[in-house]
Amino acid sequence: MAAPTKIKRIGVLTGGGDAPGLNAVIRAVVKVAIREYGLSVIGFLNGFGGLIKNQARELTEKDVVGILPRGGTILGTTNRDNPFHYPVVKGGKKVFVDVSDRIFENISIHGVDALIVIGGDGSLAIAKELYAKGLAVVGVPKTIDNDLLATDQTFGFDTALTTATEALDKLHTTAESHHRVMVLEVMGRYAGWIALAAGVAGGADVILIPEIPYRIEKVIDMINQREVQGKKFSIIVVAEGAKPVDGELVVQKRVEDSFDPIRLGGIGHVVAQQVEEATGKETRVTILGHLQRGGSPTAFDRILATRYGTGAVRLVVEGRFGHMVCLRGTSIDAVPLTEATGQIRAVPLESDLLLSARQLGICLGD
Amino acid sequence: MAAPTKIKRIGVLTGGGDAPGLNAVIRAVVKVAIREYGLSVIGFLNGFGGLIKNQARELTEKDVVGILPRGGTILGTTNRDNPFHYPVVKGGKKVFVDVSDRIFENISIHGVDALIVIGGDGSLAIAKELYAKGLAVVGVPKTIDNDLLATDQTFGFDTALTTATEALDKLHTTAESHHRVMVLEVMGRYAGWIALAAGVAGGADVILIPEIPYRIEKVIDMINQREVQGKKFSIIVVAEGAKPVDGELVVQKRVEDSFDPIRLGGIGHVVAQQVEEATGKETRVTILGHLQRGGSPTAFDRILATRYGTGAVRLVVEGRFGHMVCLRGTSIDAVPLTEATGQIRAVPLESDLLLSARQLGICLGD
Amino acid sequence: MAAPTKIKRIGVLTGGGDAPGLNAVIRAVVKVAIREYGLSVIGFLNGFGGLIKNQARELTEKDVVGILPRGGTILGTTNRDNPFHYPVVKGGKKVFVDVSDRIFENISIHGVDALIVIGGDGSLAIAKELYAKGLAVVGVPKTIDNDLLATDQTFGFDTALTTATEALDKLHTTAESHHRVMVLEVMGRYAGWIALAAGVAGGADVILIPEIPYRIEKVIDMINQREVQGKKFSIIVVAEGAKPVDGELVVQKRVEDSFDPIRLGGIGHVVAQQVEEATGKETRVTILGHLQRGGSPTAFDRILATRYGTGAVRLVVEGRFGHMVCLRGTSIDAVPLTEATGQIRAVPLESDLLLSARQLGICLGD
Amino acid sequence: MAAPTKIKRIGVLTGGGDAPGLNAVIRAVVKVAIREYGLSVIGFLNGFGGLIKNQARELTEKDVVGILPRGGTILGTTNRDNPFHYPVVKGGKKVFVDVSDRIFENISIHGVDALIVIGGDGSLAIAKELYAKGLAVVGVPKTIDNDLLATDQTFGFDTALTTATEALDKLHTTAESHHRVMVLEVMGRYAGWIALAAGVAGGADVILIPEIPYRIEKVIDMINQREVQGKKFSIIVVAEGAKPVDGELVVQKRVEDSFDPIRLGGIGHVVAQQVEEATGKETRVTILGHLQRGGSPTAFDRILATRYGTGAVRLVVEGRFGHMVCLRGTSIDAVPLTEATGQIRAVPLESDLLLSARQLGICLGD
Repeated sequence: MAAPTKIKRIGVLTGGGDAPGLNAVIRAVVKVAIREYGLSVIGFLNGFGGLIKNQARELTEKDVVGILPRGGTILGTTNRDNPFHYPVVKGGKKVFVDVSDRIFENISIHGVDALIVIGGDGSLAIAKELYAKGLAVVGVPKTIDNDLLATDQTFGFDTALTTATEALDKLHTTAESHHRVMVLEVMGRYAGWIALAAGVAGGADVILIPEIPYRIEKVIDMINQREVQGKKFSIIVVAEGAKPVDGELVVQKRVEDSFDPIRLGGIGHVVAQQVEEATGKETRVTILGHLQRGGSPTAFDRILATRYGTGAVRLVVEGRFGHMVCLRGTSIDAVPLTEATGQIRAVPLESDLLLSARQLGICLGD
Repeated sequence: MAAPTKIKRIGVLTGGGDAPGLNAVIRAVVKVAIREYGLSVIGFLNGFGGLIKNQARELTEKDVVGILPRGGTILGTTNRDNPFHYPVVKGGKKVFVDVSDRIFENISIHGVDALIVIGGDGSLAIAKELYAKGLAVVGVPKTIDNDLLATDQTFGFDTALTTATEALDKLHTTAESHHRVMVLEVMGRYAGWIALAAGVAGGADVILIPEIPYRIEKVIDMINQREVQGKKFSIIVVAEGAKPVDGELVVQKRVEDSFDPIRLGGIGHVVAQQVEEATGKETRVTILGHLQRGGSPTAFDRILATRYGTGAVRLVVEGRFGHMVCLRGTSIDAVPLTEATGQIRAVPLESDLLLSARQLGICLGD
Repeated sequence: MAAPTKIKRIGVLTGGGDAPGLNAVIRAVVKVAIREYGLSVIGFLNGFGGLIKNQARELTEKDVVGILPRGGTILGTTNRDNPFHYPVVKGGKKVFVDVSDRIFENISIHGVDALIVIGGDGSLAIAKELYAKGLAVVGVPKTIDNDLLATDQTFGFDTALTTATEALDKLHTTAESHHRVMVLEVMGRYAGWIALAAGVAGGADVILIPEIPYRIEKVIDMINQREVQGKKFSIIVVAEGAKPVDGELVVQKRVEDSFDPIRLGGIGHVVAQQVEEATGKETRVTILGHLQRGGSPTAFDRILATRYGTGAVRLVVEGRFGHMVCLRGTSIDAVPLTEATGQIRAVPLESDLLLSARQLGICLGD
Repeated sequence: MAAPTKIKRIGVLTGGGDAPGLNAVIRAVVKVAIREYGLSVIGFLNGFGGLIKNQARELTEKDVVGILPRGGTILGTTNRDNPFHYPVVKGGKKVFVDVSDRIFENISIHGVDALIVIGGDGSLAIAKELYAKGLAVVGVPKTIDNDLLATDQTFGFDTALTTATEALDKLHTTAESHHRVMVLEVMGRYAGWIALAAGVAGGADVILIPEIPYRIEKVIDMINQREVQGKKFSIIVVAEGAKPVDGELVVQKRVEDSFDPIRLGGIGHVVAQQVEEATGKETRVTILGHLQRGGSPTAFDRILATRYGTGAVRLVVEGRFGHMVCLRGTSIDAVPLTEATGQIRAVPLESDLLLSARQLGICLGD
């Protein structure tokens, strides 16, 4: 099948945090665009920054050989460089301006007919604005946090979940041998998907997520109760965004460590200290940090990413701009960017995953 | 919440082929039944055989400690022992009889109020018949082949897929270094889910599945075409149930090796021989065999299995017998066993996974 | 072969920090003692604590089924409970006394003829003292740090090394995509084996170990130099015991966090802060912590542990007490405990592993 | 340090079967030669074939970025193309001639002062002959079979061992659940290192290796004996080169399948059939085949390969030609090629690894 006469050349970029599967999307976009539709593809480097600064590279089939199993992105990515709020230095001080026109210039310089933006809520929101301004754009949802609206799952999540679950498997053996409490801090600043799913998959005793402010007494009760039952160790999974009912402590902590909870270990260490003081049990903390963003994507993520990439090219040739590919049950579908951004998808309190966790006897801190 | 007064004790069994996640279901059933609903649980051993021969063991929370990450099933399983078609020796020769009454006897001997059957199409069909005969039964869908009707996915599939994909990653490096053709034979006698998904995830060049009878010339063309493009190696994934358009060869082969294609390597070796003769390229075969049934379940399968086990107990306490838990999008749902069995779910020829494979340029043999 | 008449019963315990392979040693001891020499085996629980408090369990072949691939120890372990320096409360205050006589009592109560101590430097030093006091003891060297004298390698090290290397593989992809500096803090308070070996295996750019006090300027030079070469990311591996040439900073830090560098992230965060301030590059820290002690042992560790366990039983039946099994090249040998303890094996500054690291251009901070 | 004036340029090639770690050696050779000694490096493609046909590529530091964790070899490799026995077509028929002069021509064409040959017994034997003919050559020992003389271990073996051990872990769970006998056929045509080591690491019940011709009755006794003890499953590891005391059956089989035991599954299927017939237990076969040559090298193999590559460059600059790097205990050493080739290193019948296997009660078929 040939593409609509007007589409001859596609641009693609990866924005926001790194996620396993980005290369699989790029590979699918390039292969399908070239083989199936006879289009050419250009990649913009380091997210929207490359579109603004006109940093780009032609992408041929040769460029995507062997990248399917690799983590990271051959195009580079960044959390910064919002074209509608771009930092420039004026009169010696930093101000933020709208440089989105540069994007339209560079798009036309490269003769790009449509742009595929692979990114999370931030990048897709920018894509939405660019579409509103007249750019032919299609989105691909990406985040290891799995907190995007309008899709059943994002690629990268399954790999991050797998990394966290393998960590719990390892901590189990040593916690058991040493009669210790092990705290694993995982990503999830606003949604607890990784913590909840990994906690269930890894047999955690306590799972603390942002959606459910916790009472430390509940956590301590759980550990003491297990002690009484002869279970002399416990495993606690904490999402980096988890907070106590009285959130002061953490808010203050965030300030101290310049808003980067990863830097000083953040909430994981707070919980560990409180538990150790209250129970007298040796408590140890592991912070997975960026391990969760790295590594070869799981089979699930490679397939989802490949289907997303293929589906995005289809949206382009069908001229369905301003849409994002998404997963609905077992099918790939499309949804308007306006419905997909601006809000995160928290763990629903009535979800059966959460219910299953409760019924298994896992403490959720409430 | 308390269970309906009539439900005090649950029986559980695992039937059919082994699948990673069986222990995770058993664990969830036991924990939720005891902790949440105050029920007791008894496990019948080795599938329906234990129900017929009255082989059983009480299951307490202690019995399920540490089994979440383990492959296999602590209850044992078997493909045989259909109570409605049970082999007995009469007058020196084997005849098949209906011994399902024994099951009702043993169920009442143990004071079991409801039975949870974890199994594939065969076991669930038996469960359906037992329900029709008056047994309070609930089903949990299991098969690594992912070919069950009425559920988006079965547990065990993601783990088998992961094993097959890791194998493809390994074969890629050595195929590339040696300029060889590598054939990987995977499970899937009637449906090609593992072959198709692993082939897409592992970057295969050719994928042969039962749903699409193949022409070996197409496969050979693909390999020669790659040679011309300077790609001196190729990766072929073959489902054990794949067959050529002219199926004689294989049918005959099946007879020879007593219907066990695994035993002599089956179709994988047939394809390898034809390819080597036609292309003159060294061709090697790897048969994963039962590796695909073993090992620690992936995080995905542990979670799905846990949700299924929890959901099955809920169906029991709600008295929704004759139903099977299933996955619908992101939710656990229930479906009548009558709608769930008697037919396998093949890969739909119009599925977007298949379409994506084609658009990526993967040869499907047709 | 029968054991010397005087040996009828063996005791075994695991002491010190957890290490993958402990169960493999226990399994080998039990199987070989019972099958090959017709002995019986009793396990003392939680290191020397079980010997002092007379906590023990009989060990049969049945007890060791399935434990070969499992991390941890079925006997439990602890870093405390030194019989020669045992804390008791006298007159309201804690004092340390010699309770080693209790060990001899419990040994005779259980009719144990010889004791196998599986442990690190601390546990083996206690074993040495007990031998000097007349106990028939044999040692098995264990530590993930690989810093024991008198053996080419300890079991547990290869697994910890593998965990750290897999972490570096994951950090590489995300560091590269984000143009970041990634700091991985690994175990090794007194010796840098894990950091050095993982750094070489994982392609690190900087490796900081206790044996080589570092100058942060050297580290910063390396990162800037890579930047100039167009390599916009760097990977730094830091052993928890690494220290700057001017060690004040860290010593002080240790005090603050009650001598537990894991608790506040320790040196890894110190290095990250200095690097970020000096280079302006985003720097992220991952602390593996106890992940390095957990998980299924690698094939290498399972084999070494099994050979150690088998060799230890041989030493017992040969009556070679006061010795420890050790690895010499490809053979299992024995060495007097007096030569094996009281000093740790640091990375030799002239070792060819260190030389290889230097010649590869890895910065060692000096 | 500068290289001897006469050495300015190094050639490198990889010969024989693929082995994980080849890229790690190439990377170390390139980095150390260029950074440390200011040399240039050229790679010859596809083993000695590239030296004969003058197929080569310059190797810079850029060419080896990111290859450390990758299986395979960026230079390609082959088992064929022996320059002293090279097939050419004369008068319509194939004859073998000595084309080694072409190698000297191409070496001088490229201004190569010394050649590093990374290979197994075959390639190193050719290297030895070339050295005898006057070529400045240094060897690096490689084989997944670990059967080379004069070195404690070859790189690639630990990765193959790990792959085989993981396979056994998976087969264990499913064998146990199904009460089956599982046969795993691994590589090792002349030496049983992989089978023996993986069998010990994976808890096999029977291990059959080429060094010990087996009696099938011994194997069957073992399985029946386990049945009596209530162990209803067994795991058998078979090296592809294992043979019964009466070897006829297999010899004949080899002829049938054109000397490629992998092609029809070979000895693994022979053993499985005999066991199934004799015991009546369902028996399944898995053939790892080339999975054992692929995949990312383990940390151990990456380090050994890196030390070998670094050591080989040192031998070159020291002018110690006709030597091969080797591992001795914990050090890298050198040995004359004359002592390293022409014979394989079988498993010594008195090795303590074999003794340990026997004392653990593993059946070795004798």
